[in-house]
Parts: sequence; C-alpha cells; structure tokens
Amino acid sequence: MTLIAKTPTPPYYAVIFTSHRTDGDKGYSQMAERMFRLASEQSGFLGVESAREDVGITVSYWSDLESIKRWKENVEHQEAQKLGHKKWYSSFKTRITKVDRDYEI
Amino acid sequence: MTLIAKTPTPPYYAVIFTSHRTDGDKGYSQMAERMFRLASEQSGFLGVESAREDVGITVSYWSDLESIKRWKENVEHQEAQKLGHKKWYSSFKTRITKVDRDYEI
Repeated sequence: MTLIAKTPTPPYYAVIFTSHRTDGDKGYSQMAERMFRLASEQSGFLGVESAREDVGITVSYWSDLESIKRWKENVEHQEAQKLGHKKWYSSFKTRITKVDRDYEI
Repeated sequence: MTLIAKTPTPPYYAVIFTSHRTDGDKGYSQMAERMFRLASEQSGFLGVESAREDVGITVSYWSDLESIKRWKENVEHQEAQKLGHKKWYSSFKTRITKVDRDYEI
C-alpha cells in the first residue's frame, strides 16, 4: 500500500516509471515488494507512490541525480530490471524529472 | 483507459498529481472524463497517464510551463479544482517537474 509521499521542499527529483504488464504474476509481486523495500533503504531516497489499472505508474522521489544513478546500478535492482525486460513488462517508459514546485491540501 | 503517453524527445514538463479520494463518486467520474478531454484539447498538451489503487496518480505531460499555467487557470478546470477541494479529494499533492531524460522498451 502506498500513500502520498511526504517529500521535502523542492527542488528534488522524481523518476516516473510507467508500464504495461505481461499476463500472470511470474514472481513479479514478490520482487516488486523486495524492490520497494530495497529502494527505501538507499541514500537519497525520499518516497514512492504506485498504482496500477490499465497502466502501472510508479513515481519514486530522490534528493539528487547521483542517488538515482546509484539505484539504477544497484546489483540486485539490475537483476530485477533484467527480469522486467524479459518477463514482466510488455512495454515501459522511464522519465527522469526535476521537481521544481509542489503544493498540496 | 490510459496507456503509456507517447511524448517527444525531452526536455518537456510533467505534472504529477497524487490524491486520495473521499468515499462515493459524487459526480467525480463524469468530471474526470470531461477534464481528460478538455486537457487534451489545450495547446502544449502532450499526453496523460492515470491509475488508481490505494492512491491515485495522474501524470500529464506538457511542452512548456506556460501551457501548464494556462491549463491551471482554465475557467472550467478551475471549477473542477474547486469541487476537487470541496468534495472529491481528502488530500492531494501536485508536483511540477521538468523531464530531462527518458528511455523505454
């Protein structure tokens, strides 16, 4: 279960990962949970939001680009990314963004 | 139904709108559909992705900040925003971001 992430005052960074899944779980749920936990232990991690209907959207928030790069290159995460390419996603798009402004109620 | 948005080569802009709904529809679905259609007619609009589970995430993509500002100030959209505050959302967060890089399969 994810909530609205409690992020600090901008600027910070957001990685928007949008995907379509292949049919069947094939170990996806367990790995997704593991990756959520692992990401949240990384330095520079600020929070994550995730939902899936026709399309899945996961937005992770980071303090700086270096932390995003380190997470992308994390060995266990690399393994998950490979399986994502091969088994879990029929298509995806990753967008690296800088958050300049935010507001809320 | 939303798919992965076909956005151009960066840079462009993304508005990440994350929300928790109140109970019951109360005219929300109809207005959401209307706002999707209206947004897609605005100049500078590039696409939108949306999904809701525990949290709702809608990411809209725009060519420039001026277009985001115009959409925020659109009279009909302003009316929807007021109703969102009053009736539909128990909490939300809007983040204005610049997309610097993207990649896909």
